[in-house]
Amino acid sequence: MMAKGLPMTRRQLLSMIGYAAGASVMYQSMTSLGYAAESPYRSGKKLQGAPKKGSSVVVLGAGLAGMVAALELRDAGYKVKILEYQDRAGGRNWSWYGGTEYTELGGEKQVCEFDEGLYLNPGPWRIPYHHYAVLEYCKRLNVKLEPFIQMNFNAYLHAQNAFDGKPQRYAHVVSDFRGGISELLAKAVNTDKLDMPVTDEDKEILLAALKNHGALNDEYKYVKSLDTSARRGYAKAPGGGLNARPEPSEPINFKELIDSRVWANMDVHFLEEFQNTMFQPVGGMGKIGEAFHRELKDLIQLNAQVVEIKQDDNGVTISYKDRNGGEEVKTETADWCVCTLPLSVLSQIPMNVDRKMQDAINAVPYAPAVKVGTQYKRRFWEEDEQIYGGISYTDLPITQISYPSDNMFSSGKGVLLNGYVFGVDAVQFSAMPPKERIAKALEYSAQIHPQIKEEAENSMAMAWSRVPWTLGCFGIWTDRKREEHYDNLCRMDGRIVLAGEHASYIPAWMEGAMLSGLAAIEQLHEKAMAQ
Amino acid sequence: MMAKGLPMTRRQLLSMIGYAAGASVMYQSMTSLGYAAESPYRSGKKLQGAPKKGSSVVVLGAGLAGMVAALELRDAGYKVKILEYQDRAGGRNWSWYGGTEYTELGGEKQVCEFDEGLYLNPGPWRIPYHHYAVLEYCKRLNVKLEPFIQMNFNAYLHAQNAFDGKPQRYAHVVSDFRGGISELLAKAVNTDKLDMPVTDEDKEILLAALKNHGALNDEYKYVKSLDTSARRGYAKAPGGGLNARPEPSEPINFKELIDSRVWANMDVHFLEEFQNTMFQPVGGMGKIGEAFHRELKDLIQLNAQVVEIKQDDNGVTISYKDRNGGEEVKTETADWCVCTLPLSVLSQIPMNVDRKMQDAINAVPYAPAVKVGTQYKRRFWEEDEQIYGGISYTDLPITQISYPSDNMFSSGKGVLLNGYVFGVDAVQFSAMPPKERIAKALEYSAQIHPQIKEEAENSMAMAWSRVPWTLGCFGIWTDRKREEHYDNLCRMDGRIVLAGEHASYIPAWMEGAMLSGLAAIEQLHEKAMAQ
Repeated sequence: MMAKGLPMTRRQLLSMIGYAAGASVMYQSMTSLGYAAESPYRSGKKLQGAPKKGSSVVVLGAGLAGMVAALELRDAGYKVKILEYQDRAGGRNWSWYGGTEYTELGGEKQVCEFDEGLYLNPGPWRIPYHHYAVLEYCKRLNVKLEPFIQMNFNAYLHAQNAFDGKPQRYAHVVSDFRGGISELLAKAVNTDKLDMPVTDEDKEILLAALKNHGALNDEYKYVKSLDTSARRGYAKAPGGGLNARPEPSEPINFKELIDSRVWANMDVHFLEEFQNTMFQPVGGMGKIGEAFHRELKDLIQLNAQVVEIKQDDNGVTISYKDRNGGEEVKTETADWCVCTLPLSVLSQIPMNVDRKMQDAINAVPYAPAVKVGTQYKRRFWEEDEQIYGGISYTDLPITQISYPSDNMFSSGKGVLLNGYVFGVDAVQFSAMPPKERIAKALEYSAQIHPQIKEEAENSMAMAWSRVPWTLGCFGIWTDRKREEHYDNLCRMDGRIVLAGEHASYIPAWMEGAMLSGLAAIEQLHEKAMAQ
Repeated sequence: MMAKGLPMTRRQLLSMIGYAAGASVMYQSMTSLGYAAESPYRSGKKLQGAPKKGSSVVVLGAGLAGMVAALELRDAGYKVKILEYQDRAGGRNWSWYGGTEYTELGGEKQVCEFDEGLYLNPGPWRIPYHHYAVLEYCKRLNVKLEPFIQMNFNAYLHAQNAFDGKPQRYAHVVSDFRGGISELLAKAVNTDKLDMPVTDEDKEILLAALKNHGALNDEYKYVKSLDTSARRGYAKAPGGGLNARPEPSEPINFKELIDSRVWANMDVHFLEEFQNTMFQPVGGMGKIGEAFHRELKDLIQLNAQVVEIKQDDNGVTISYKDRNGGEEVKTETADWCVCTLPLSVLSQIPMNVDRKMQDAINAVPYAPAVKVGTQYKRRFWEEDEQIYGGISYTDLPITQISYPSDNMFSSGKGVLLNGYVFGVDAVQFSAMPPKERIAKALEYSAQIHPQIKEEAENSMAMAWSRVPWTLGCFGIWTDRKREEHYDNLCRMDGRIVLAGEHASYIPAWMEGAMLSGLAAIEQLHEKAMAQ
């Protein structure tokens, strides 16, 4: 968890996160920083009352924050124009398919060679059940969703220095951990070692709960038995006909289990952001951005690189270059501006807002993050290891391997996310050319799935700090920075209001982007209506 | 858990199960009785070597055990004929759609009025990832699978006498339970109250694990905070823009939580049979039986009611009546017989097998079970309560409400399983006519979802003890009965070998039926090849 209130450089912050106990700590840090969870989204018409006829808004950035804002402003009666730097809409909401080309800062170009029907989401990749805005816009824009499998009891937990490097099945770890702590606590209860004023009845029911929870035997022990095997799995599984009698499996020694630290990633699935049921669009997360793009295509001008944002009493003037049109600077004017550019980019663009907003823009560092995805000749994780969807976690820099939730049981190929790198590891990965990044990720992943060496066909790698249009994965807020800068960042300044995941308490999530877009246009509309 | 080794009447057994602490106990009993879990299935060709030319097998019952056996016998070169009592194949593998007609013992007929695309599985309804036989035959017969959502953190745990009858979100209960026991154990560790020889280092790492597991604060307490809210959910969820700061929620008091007994059903999802990832066929579980039927249609004779099974040195003679053809008794002869009739039915049919097998057939009682499903005007569980798939558990006789895993987010209607009744409750439900059964289930379900009263459109009810062709849901084995009778039941007697879920250690599951079918034909083939 983050130390609260201490001044800390970005480097200190990142290395603290990066060097700590792996992905789980990073997730918890993200949670602690952003308190990301259930959304306060309310459905229905977003803006009440019509603006003055001809009122216009320019939206900077055709990511989800900008497109949600544009859609609702248009529906409320505003004249809306979106300027987008890229030659596509969607922003970080993106999927890579065979043929997708991507050139990162530094000039390295990758061309995706995935087969038809396969994809990788370099950005967001899963939707919690409580991200109401995302879910409702998917419904409204006919983006079909399917379950994203997050928690899989047959996936692995892996730690380099534990169990001779052998990955452990989630069912084994979770069953044995719960059994172990339940047994210890039952012992303390039974021997009256708790400093608690408890009646015999209290004790009895607590013991019953622990027995149930931990699969303890009548002596409140977690032992090798058919009962514990019904949780963790059997040595010989039950069958049919003669010779079908099951044999119990041996639990992991509790001390060894605790020492292994594989428990560090065991409870990721219990964070509200990762709880069942989760979703993904059929065919790739990028389907959401594409659906918004279809809906708003008349409003969006692609390839527009914003070079200055100016406001005065009469309106806002955006200066931009057409990226296909040389050095000529064009302008777009409007009454109001919703600016969703990532702060990492916006901090480099002249804009006349007050000092406090500018300080806020400059104050928020961006997280590096790297994703590597690889196409395999066959779905060996299903065929050899019976892993259908879900995620294996490791303390290696790749942090996790995610198995596809679609096309399960197909005989064809599949794409694994075989690296999602954070913190200082991500800084190191980002410094490598894509080929090296991929090789490194494959080398690490093969420690968990040795088949990877044989079966890998082609890969793609995303280093978010090298993305020209965002220069990082998401804005990193600390409690202290929130205190000092957050309201200043979000409070509309004259005719300009900011939005994006960075202007939310749900950083790095699409829901944060959408909610910030909706909050921004509420401020704008209120101001416009008051004029 | 079942008392081991005690003689017990069927009534005692059922009432013990029925009167105990609800569904979880029933599940655990099922598990304890049957040790149902991972399957020892091995894929590939099932029978090696060709039988003598013209060798024939008659298979009794076109359920999954019988059809798997028939398919593999046919592929090995046997001449196979299946006699089936019903006018459909599939047995307990069945889905009800609009138009499905079903008449139970006693003459009550139901006609399903579900809309197009909706269904209820009166029998099996989910497939664990380790039920390899079921999964492989689905692949082989092109039965498309999709995830079955079992565990849903936003579904409910409900107990009539707790929390004023208000159902509790799973995320609240599981987070607060884990937090509570982690805090108690951390306290015992911290105050050296464990009678364990532990080093300071051991203590330190155990405390770190408990802190991580329980979301404890720096004082190892589970308290109202943004950290604990990141697990259980917030009072005010984080948002975007101004006024987006989250507010923590208040955990349930630990003593109240333990006293509530809602934890009794909390850990169902951690039993291997119910662990993520689970599956269902697209369009209904009955698609599996239909696929086998298509594959084997030339071998199956429907409407054949077996009245006698006779064997001698030369072969097997099955006497049966054509249910559409009056009282005339016909015969079918073959070299061998695979008999998959449920023991509840088989015990009433004359068959010349040795005393031990006959004793075994007579020894196994069948479980009553009732399922009620209802079509609703709208998917209120999704629209009002954000429950997408998964199961709510209750200590009411209905034991659970299961939300559909398909068509989530659709604006149309939906079908809930709003009652799966076991034990003595099932006996009582079965004694009512279907209409009353349905009314009772709806009345109970409305305690969890009051919308049910408004939204219910039409229902179907299955009482397995009233099914003419199975007279119960599945065979109930105790450890003692297994010891005495199981091998006698499964050991081939002359030319007759038995199969079905009752001839397996995975009772009530399709995998048990299939594995028993495969085990039976191995015995048969070995004997045939030896002749």
